[in-house]
Amino acid sequence: MKLTHLIGMSILTSSLLMGTSTNLAETAIKSGLKAIPESKEALKKLIDPNSLLTDAKVELGKKLYFEPRLSKSGIISCNTCHNLGMGGADGVAAAVGHKWTANPHHLNSPTVYNAVFFDAQFWDGRAHQVEDQAQGPMQAEPEMAAPKSLVEERINSIPGYVSEFKEAYGKDAKIDFETITKTIGYFERTLVTPSRFDDFLNGKQNALTDAEKEGLTVFIDKGCVSCHSGIALGGSMQPFQVAAKYKFANIGDFKGDKNGMVKTPTLRNITETAPYFHNGAIWSLAEAVKEMGSTQLGIKISDEEANKIVTFFNALEGRKPEIVYPQLPKSSDKTPKPDFN
Amino acid sequence: MKLTHLIGMSILTSSLLMGTSTNLAETAIKSGLKAIPESKEALKKLIDPNSLLTDAKVELGKKLYFEPRLSKSGIISCNTCHNLGMGGADGVAAAVGHKWTANPHHLNSPTVYNAVFFDAQFWDGRAHQVEDQAQGPMQAEPEMAAPKSLVEERINSIPGYVSEFKEAYGKDAKIDFETITKTIGYFERTLVTPSRFDDFLNGKQNALTDAEKEGLTVFIDKGCVSCHSGIALGGSMQPFQVAAKYKFANIGDFKGDKNGMVKTPTLRNITETAPYFHNGAIWSLAEAVKEMGSTQLGIKISDEEANKIVTFFNALEGRKPEIVYPQLPKSSDKTPKPDFN
Repeated sequence: MKLTHLIGMSILTSSLLMGTSTNLAETAIKSGLKAIPESKEALKKLIDPNSLLTDAKVELGKKLYFEPRLSKSGIISCNTCHNLGMGGADGVAAAVGHKWTANPHHLNSPTVYNAVFFDAQFWDGRAHQVEDQAQGPMQAEPEMAAPKSLVEERINSIPGYVSEFKEAYGKDAKIDFETITKTIGYFERTLVTPSRFDDFLNGKQNALTDAEKEGLTVFIDKGCVSCHSGIALGGSMQPFQVAAKYKFANIGDFKGDKNGMVKTPTLRNITETAPYFHNGAIWSLAEAVKEMGSTQLGIKISDEEANKIVTFFNALEGRKPEIVYPQLPKSSDKTPKPDFN
Repeated sequence: MKLTHLIGMSILTSSLLMGTSTNLAETAIKSGLKAIPESKEALKKLIDPNSLLTDAKVELGKKLYFEPRLSKSGIISCNTCHNLGMGGADGVAAAVGHKWTANPHHLNSPTVYNAVFFDAQFWDGRAHQVEDQAQGPMQAEPEMAAPKSLVEERINSIPGYVSEFKEAYGKDAKIDFETITKTIGYFERTLVTPSRFDDFLNGKQNALTDAEKEGLTVFIDKGCVSCHSGIALGGSMQPFQVAAKYKFANIGDFKGDKNGMVKTPTLRNITETAPYFHNGAIWSLAEAVKEMGSTQLGIKISDEEANKIVTFFNALEGRKPEIVYPQLPKSSDKTPKPDFN
């Protein structure tokens, strides 16, 4: 985010406050917001540009996503911290994992929903694709704490998984850590939540209430869209604390990537994923909006304006894909036992 | 279980080893085994004798079953230890809960599937109905660690739950601890898993393989059915260590109820719910069968016989109800925050 860009945005949009719905949708799109496409084909191209997904891989990926035996203890799965019933997150400030250890940098679990649309994964953006991201928490000592070799041994010891990998990847499939985590990523690519906001951008003028339209206008006008743009309304790396210091910067030691850049969180389903910020220090969405105003934009967002923006956020609550809870294949005598140490 | 009863059983059945399938099904029923009824009406009467279940209550109960905010930390749900994708249990020896604390008595999480058919809940049988059982782990310090008041406060602070309780119980519904846990029990009553064994008892002679029929015959002939009887093939209180001391009795301090009685685990889905015994000390099902022979029946079950019995157990793997993973209503500003201490 550059300040010049920001100022340009603000000029572009400030005069459009009272425009019609069509104008507003056009303005939103011009300002950098994008809809999840309505057409299944267009969406498929976006989430699976290299045509890697098959039903068998996605279904297997779903099982692995809910699979606690991918953790050292055998009781923590991807879904523990990225709960698909809770907006794709866990609702706690800093993630807690193996041995009840809080994230050592006091980092909050970001939502997995719509992560396929992010340019960057992790708060410091160290991975680009969901497939790469999946390798991190599984191995991280305070999360799932499972070395690659343990993950491979567990899955290869479970006959049901071996046959499903063969079905998905062919008879000679090698069930290694990369294939296992990649398959989880394939499932995650399907976790897309179209919302009333998308319907609005896609032409349904009545998809938003008047109050939500007003909130969207304020959102654009204030310049929030400079960082919260694209399909994800976020997901790209941006400088942090551009205008002022974040008021809870002292909680945890996270400083962003080597250039101080931080991944902008998506605003999709944001009403369902409190607490906010990389360290989960703010529980109120209106307070988070105001803090962003001062930290990033160098402006004071009033309570009234913040509430209007939050009203718009309701329209970003997406329709979640229906997930049938998977039946996981049973362990064998060879399956490495749970280890709580 | 009385020894005289046991001996009678053995005489009754030993001559039937090579009988026809019809004979075998009849023998099984005469010896005390019961099928899950095929007829929906008959099943409904069994699981809901007082006609308390409604779709709204069961659906709400499902949400609560998967609801981590019922725990003090906000990250442990009923499903954490009674995982519906893992045979209704957790696959670890002693349950681990709040603050990574193992069950202080080293007790293993029993499956929730078919628990509605049990005479007794908990290893010491201190509850009779699933509704009563649900009150225990939620409050237990090493499990979900949530005092009643916290559970009530959390649920009452979530508008989505308040309206669902009103829908389920009427406008003046009081959302107290009893109602919350009762509703979870209503959902659990639906967690019934008919298997090929039921099909066999219900008249489908080819539902079992010949090897499974042979295993069933050994199972009856050895007298296992003295305790593992009824629809649940278990679930009632029985004396433990009748004939000899359990070889891992030194793991944990559990001694049964005040009379030394212990709840017999169900054998339904037993192939999916290792490890075995109240303290989860035995991982091999064949070993568990042999140990039961010496501990309870005072007989030596050979490796070959144990393997035959285990082969029969495959027929007890049930068809699980399809569970659509629930979308949980979002917290409000008033929702008590997660507490990891």
